[in-house]
Amino acid sequence: MMRFILQRRRDQMNEKYAVILGNLGNTCDRFLSTGYKTQLPKEEMIRQAAGMERVTGIELVGTWDVTRENHAEVGKLLVDNNLHCVSIIPDLFSQAVWGKGSLSAKDRATRESAIAYMAEMCDIADSLHCSLINIWPGQDGYDYPLQSDFKQERGWMIESIARLAEDHGNLQISLEFKPREPRNHSFFARTADTLLAALETKMPNVGVTIDVGHSLYANENVAESIVLLQQYGKLFHLHLNDNYRYWDDDMIVGSVHFVEYLEMFYWLRETNYAGWYSMDQYPYREDGRAAIEASVKFVQALNRMLSDTAMSELRAIVHNGDAVEANTWVRNAIFGRMA
Amino acid sequence: MMRFILQRRRDQMNEKYAVILGNLGNTCDRFLSTGYKTQLPKEEMIRQAAGMERVTGIELVGTWDVTRENHAEVGKLLVDNNLHCVSIIPDLFSQAVWGKGSLSAKDRATRESAIAYMAEMCDIADSLHCSLINIWPGQDGYDYPLQSDFKQERGWMIESIARLAEDHGNLQISLEFKPREPRNHSFFARTADTLLAALETKMPNVGVTIDVGHSLYANENVAESIVLLQQYGKLFHLHLNDNYRYWDDDMIVGSVHFVEYLEMFYWLRETNYAGWYSMDQYPYREDGRAAIEASVKFVQALNRMLSDTAMSELRAIVHNGDAVEANTWVRNAIFGRMA
Amino acid sequence: MMRFILQRRRDQMNEKYAVILGNLGNTCDRFLSTGYKTQLPKEEMIRQAAGMERVTGIELVGTWDVTRENHAEVGKLLVDNNLHCVSIIPDLFSQAVWGKGSLSAKDRATRESAIAYMAEMCDIADSLHCSLINIWPGQDGYDYPLQSDFKQERGWMIESIARLAEDHGNLQISLEFKPREPRNHSFFARTADTLLAALETKMPNVGVTIDVGHSLYANENVAESIVLLQQYGKLFHLHLNDNYRYWDDDMIVGSVHFVEYLEMFYWLRETNYAGWYSMDQYPYREDGRAAIEASVKFVQALNRMLSDTAMSELRAIVHNGDAVEANTWVRNAIFGRMA
Amino acid sequence: MMRFILQRRRDQMNEKYAVILGNLGNTCDRFLSTGYKTQLPKEEMIRQAAGMERVTGIELVGTWDVTRENHAEVGKLLVDNNLHCVSIIPDLFSQAVWGKGSLSAKDRATRESAIAYMAEMCDIADSLHCSLINIWPGQDGYDYPLQSDFKQERGWMIESIARLAEDHGNLQISLEFKPREPRNHSFFARTADTLLAALETKMPNVGVTIDVGHSLYANENVAESIVLLQQYGKLFHLHLNDNYRYWDDDMIVGSVHFVEYLEMFYWLRETNYAGWYSMDQYPYREDGRAAIEASVKFVQALNRMLSDTAMSELRAIVHNGDAVEANTWVRNAIFGRMA
Repeated sequence: MMRFILQRRRDQMNEKYAVILGNLGNTCDRFLSTGYKTQLPKEEMIRQAAGMERVTGIELVGTWDVTRENHAEVGKLLVDNNLHCVSIIPDLFSQAVWGKGSLSAKDRATRESAIAYMAEMCDIADSLHCSLINIWPGQDGYDYPLQSDFKQERGWMIESIARLAEDHGNLQISLEFKPREPRNHSFFARTADTLLAALETKMPNVGVTIDVGHSLYANENVAESIVLLQQYGKLFHLHLNDNYRYWDDDMIVGSVHFVEYLEMFYWLRETNYAGWYSMDQYPYREDGRAAIEASVKFVQALNRMLSDTAMSELRAIVHNGDAVEANTWVRNAIFGRMA
Repeated sequence: MMRFILQRRRDQMNEKYAVILGNLGNTCDRFLSTGYKTQLPKEEMIRQAAGMERVTGIELVGTWDVTRENHAEVGKLLVDNNLHCVSIIPDLFSQAVWGKGSLSAKDRATRESAIAYMAEMCDIADSLHCSLINIWPGQDGYDYPLQSDFKQERGWMIESIARLAEDHGNLQISLEFKPREPRNHSFFARTADTLLAALETKMPNVGVTIDVGHSLYANENVAESIVLLQQYGKLFHLHLNDNYRYWDDDMIVGSVHFVEYLEMFYWLRETNYAGWYSMDQYPYREDGRAAIEASVKFVQALNRMLSDTAMSELRAIVHNGDAVEANTWVRNAIFGRMA
Repeated sequence: MMRFILQRRRDQMNEKYAVILGNLGNTCDRFLSTGYKTQLPKEEMIRQAAGMERVTGIELVGTWDVTRENHAEVGKLLVDNNLHCVSIIPDLFSQAVWGKGSLSAKDRATRESAIAYMAEMCDIADSLHCSLINIWPGQDGYDYPLQSDFKQERGWMIESIARLAEDHGNLQISLEFKPREPRNHSFFARTADTLLAALETKMPNVGVTIDVGHSLYANENVAESIVLLQQYGKLFHLHLNDNYRYWDDDMIVGSVHFVEYLEMFYWLRETNYAGWYSMDQYPYREDGRAAIEASVKFVQALNRMLSDTAMSELRAIVHNGDAVEANTWVRNAIFGRMA
Repeated sequence: MMRFILQRRRDQMNEKYAVILGNLGNTCDRFLSTGYKTQLPKEEMIRQAAGMERVTGIELVGTWDVTRENHAEVGKLLVDNNLHCVSIIPDLFSQAVWGKGSLSAKDRATRESAIAYMAEMCDIADSLHCSLINIWPGQDGYDYPLQSDFKQERGWMIESIARLAEDHGNLQISLEFKPREPRNHSFFARTADTLLAALETKMPNVGVTIDVGHSLYANENVAESIVLLQQYGKLFHLHLNDNYRYWDDDMIVGSVHFVEYLEMFYWLRETNYAGWYSMDQYPYREDGRAAIEASVKFVQALNRMLSDTAMSELRAIVHNGDAVEANTWVRNAIFGRMA
């Protein structure tokens, strides 16, 4: 028993927290394209991230944060700040060249450029001792009825990803789905279709990233998505944020959802998730540092709430399936045992 | 200061809790029309309601609970159990005669039957010392494009309600909106359109009921709806339950939403809501009594959380409009000040 | 060329239309549990179906239409009316015994009853020369957070279905998904997760049914779902109806969606769908026969619109991916070439 | 009878078509802030608009199209191209200064700047002989729970609009609602709440603009919204586009919805809408001119379809309320009378 408690404490110490660097910078939207804030220097953003309690990882976005030209310099900044590069997110979305698709573009030359760019990003990951490439193919999808040859275009994507995974067997290639935006329909739209795509590559190093906001917006019960991916050994990575389920609002974690977050984290622990908890937000009008730090604190508090006792109580509740018991536990958790 | 505290305590004692009687009985759906449970005798349901802590009110549904024939007997049962009849909900939905509408039916005779039935229900309300008629015109709406003469049909409804309100000036007539179900589109669908309808009657005793689940399902921010109605003096009544925002699931309060409920109750207190907190659920597969009681406990805990100190802190947060401050308060409320 | 045209004509003649028998009977909902209409005798419903142009198939629902006791008699009625039994839909939803799940029930005895009942339905299918069992496990899911052990319960379902498929290798076992209702979350919720479940059974005779309304309600682009299933050879069956994407309204085909239906049928033909076009509606307040017949006519008109010329034009449009071209084709199709 | 037909023909000739100028230029989103296309010179965009069949009106957006500095020059360009300035849409959304609200900003100085800027835009409207100011207060709303003092902030907006309307009694002030974006919640979110706001100004020259996409995205039946506003004499203006109901996709008119558009246009004619049909799109990846022109053609074809005969048939259908009749009419309209 004592040993078990010690192990749990050790596990909790092992929870790994990260932030996506760009969250700390400027943000824009289609109406205010110059942005709501002023852009901070990269050094300042990295310093801010490093200052957050127990945050030891950084995710870098291609073009915005890391390029062929600057990667050595960025790597040095991370080292200097005791930060680890958790993942690189290749930029398949912020360049006009990918406007009608990258890995699934109808134009062959565009697809080949995308593959070449991805390979370059993998090399940079290697050089930064980063072991995961997070592919969010935002422009790969379609907007209108009768516009896409679904099988052909999805096929191209899977083929390229399989090839990339084969060429970079040391890297985890993690596919991040999202139902829509910037396209009206994404090819990697939900948990199960993206898992299918990962399985079709037949590569053990291809998996799936759950961005909690994307999954909420896809009307999924995120906890169920987590369990499905863990069952296949395919939950490679996790992006955390919140929204109202109507759009990818990229809000502070816990600002809208508590009960769903509790169920998610119960299942993350129950299925022994060992990856990073990475914050992914768009604090359009908030102070970036404060907004990210609030998320980190929420996530850490949630992990603390899930003590061994709590896990064991919740395990019994899930086993029984009684909604009143579940609700009573949640009510007590929020308002205290006297509630 | 002391006086203020005393006043608040008195206010809290004055919060009035009620349940809709039928919640405690059997429930069915379109696939399992005979129901998931067995129906309890009315006496037993009333006894169960009376046994819930601080529950002193009951809402009765026409046909199901109260009719011309049984109302004296039902009234006696309430008195015997120290329960007050908070509202009567005329049955404009469970009879085939209203299948294509009641107050808005294209058929004139049907409309007149509906008016006559409503008048009868008002008389019963009087005899039960009940001061509010809650009109949920579930069958008044339309299913298909090109099926409804919106202005005409909505006009009939408003006219009948105005007449009813005039004939029963001692009663509050409260209109309960819902975006859809059982019709694909309801005429009273959201807060603002129903408020408009209430205003069109030009009767001071016509107002609006917010069923929290209906408002969530209408994609409203319920707190904002509360404030709008209070501004017009038209928030007459409140039905409490929860859902996932995709349908009127009629779940236990707080089983899905916490932050939104907190914002709602902040504004109810801030705008001096003096009406009932009435539970309205469909515990299809749960023990009815336990499920309703869980809601009552959640609502009471929420009201306790909103102490004078909490109200004053939240008032400052709302005034500043800083999302990080708001999120920090909520995080501390859930996880404790150490979070 | 001539041969091609002849072949196409032959194909069109081969389109197979069916209706779900119960569509022609009474319908109810949770508020009006006794129903909006009067129930017709089975003989009359079968006669009505047989009278619809080119309708040659019938789907039967367990309990409602077909049971151990009546199946011989029902079979005779079908033969007498020159109708083929296209599928049997076992009743896993209308009995209180399945209220908390059938194949995934936490209670072992319930799961075993469900398996035994399914086996019985398979035997009845054999006796009616019906080759497809359409499994819609409506009660298999969960309602509340922290109520379901997703992996365990989904695992039980898949195991039972695999066993059923093995024991009845001559039958197609087709899984019909739906995001929710009657449970707040279904285990078979969307196209890709249900395809995954079918694949997990490792049985070639397990596939998926698309109910168009369920897919629309799941926020899917139904055409894309069709293509995904066809790619795996797993689109076994098709239920047709319409809705507003907010619920499973089970409306007349084409009453809301035209462009999406056009895209679906383009892809059904392009991928050589050879199954049935089966109408599945809930004409609560409409004349059942007229409402079903309207759907049949819409579907047949749509198939006629997709002539070889149309298919060839649309193929080029999909290949190019130009939204203006696609929109122009649709506009011309609706308003005529002069538009 | 003959006179009636002549009058109708005259009415049809009187339908007025317009486009929002910026639709023809570059478009960006939050991921690709530099845009999907290259920006055309203003002269070229105006020339393109003028070249569209029967398009005689232009809407200008503040900052993007029209400013204090360039308005005389822009006015001359319009005159030279025989175009009328239909409305001016003040820029309350594309400047960082309005990032936390304009007319409802918590900061008083910001609110005063917004009022001053609005007044300036009214003067420019006068100088361009434009009679309508279309207010889309995109930044006026809130993002997080517990962030907004709804009554106070909405009150400020209404007060400013009332003052503006009073100072510019010759102008129509039309309020354009949208449920969200760029804020997670807009103050003017749906038809009825915006109508209420217009009524609260007590000014006859304050009305409402329906942007069809905003209304679809708000889960409204747009036809019903049209009728409600017409009943109050408050439907001042109309923006046309299309979407999938999940977001403000700003697509080509008719690319997704046909039946709903038919019902809308039936009611526009039935209620004698005499305003402009103005195209409002974001053709991110399409040729702007072709995409706008496709919308114009769709709208004109729809108006042609609604001949006197069609109107009279539809009037009877709406009167009867039979869904099968409605569906049959639509089916025949699409597929021809033989369908």
